[in-house]
Amino acid sequence: MAKNVAVVLAGCGRADGSEIHESVSVLIHLARAGARYRCFAPDLPQVEVVNHATGKPAAEHRNQLVEAARIARGEIDPLARLDVEAFDAVVFPGGFGAAKNLCTFAKDGENCAVVPDVARVIKGFHAAGKPIGLCCIAPVLAARVLGTASGGPGCQVTIGSDPKVAAAIGKMGSTNVEKPVREAFTDARNRIVTTPAYMCDAGPHEVFEGIGKMIDQTLALTSR
Amino acid sequence: MAKNVAVVLAGCGRADGSEIHESVSVLIHLARAGARYRCFAPDLPQVEVVNHATGKPAAEHRNQLVEAARIARGEIDPLARLDVEAFDAVVFPGGFGAAKNLCTFAKDGENCAVVPDVARVIKGFHAAGKPIGLCCIAPVLAARVLGTASGGPGCQVTIGSDPKVAAAIGKMGSTNVEKPVREAFTDARNRIVTTPAYMCDAGPHEVFEGIGKMIDQTLALTSR
Repeated sequence: MAKNVAVVLAGCGRADGSEIHESVSVLIHLARAGARYRCFAPDLPQVEVVNHATGKPAAEHRNQLVEAARIARGEIDPLARLDVEAFDAVVFPGGFGAAKNLCTFAKDGENCAVVPDVARVIKGFHAAGKPIGLCCIAPVLAARVLGTASGGPGCQVTIGSDPKVAAAIGKMGSTNVEKPVREAFTDARNRIVTTPAYMCDAGPHEVFEGIGKMIDQTLALTSR
Repeated sequence: MAKNVAVVLAGCGRADGSEIHESVSVLIHLARAGARYRCFAPDLPQVEVVNHATGKPAAEHRNQLVEAARIARGEIDPLARLDVEAFDAVVFPGGFGAAKNLCTFAKDGENCAVVPDVARVIKGFHAAGKPIGLCCIAPVLAARVLGTASGGPGCQVTIGSDPKVAAAIGKMGSTNVEKPVREAFTDARNRIVTTPAYMCDAGPHEVFEGIGKMIDQTLALTSR
């Protein structure tokens, strides 16, 4: 029976939403592996809109779900409706949306707040023993929600080699594991699989390859 | 020496811009094959903005270049600056942007007008004997610009099996070649390579595979 995987997006674009190459790589690899997937995003405003041609903030308002629907080709539901019972695994692509919209890491670092539905989903999959895949900067979500500083067990994740981000992971009570872009790392105890993706200075084909390993390792941890 | 490929985008999203899965598949396969690429898009307003969650038009204005920059991760230039001399090949991903923003096919069918810079680019690469790759609905651009109805030689392209689109290709003085999603077709005389991508009811991994063949066949036709 096909595995059923939830993919959590947060807009559409590296600077203010979900990183597009990473999100598409996740969907391609899930489909390639024979899994079914459903996309979700918070039905909430983006924290900001960035003009990706100039890199400057734009005086606009956009909704995370409506923009993420571009990546999902319209097949998407509000994150509030993500029922842990209905899925075998959950995957979070990266992009600044993960650090701005899904939590406040981009401005608050290790003291970041995590959007309640995101915390609910991570805690729910973790408690059910169902695997959680994350890439790029998204692993900060698991590091925060499951870190010892938040009363969790602490987890091991990849976030590349940025010393500031690595230090923040440690202060959350989780551990940074340095891996190159083409590899993924499994924290078997917590069933968390991560890959650094565009936290590395890499090409899209390298990001695609690392995400392929993240998806394969995530699916390997599902129990049916 | 690495091949240098121009990729022409027209926004970001299947319903009003460049289809995201197709565009990302193009970039991954180009990088995988060792080619360099540069993205371009018209510095012009999108014909419309569609809410991809509802499928309905949105009362917004967006610029094709600014939105396409989300797919290109900020590395993009105005289409007006695409110099045929500087590239070995050009690739056009699909999405309604190709049929709404790059030409008027979505409303005018076989009588569509093509944006002058798009016509210049297609004629320029064709005249220079440099390959042109197109997928999904984008092949209508080559079929129109190079069709006998426009005084061209006529070309052979894939656009899936939609009988209305196939008939329009014929009326433009070009020929539809029906291929499945995982295959690409080379019109060797014109050095045009096409694959139907999401003109077929297919998964992202199948679209990725067909686009891989389109990119490989396009690069094989470059002369150095």
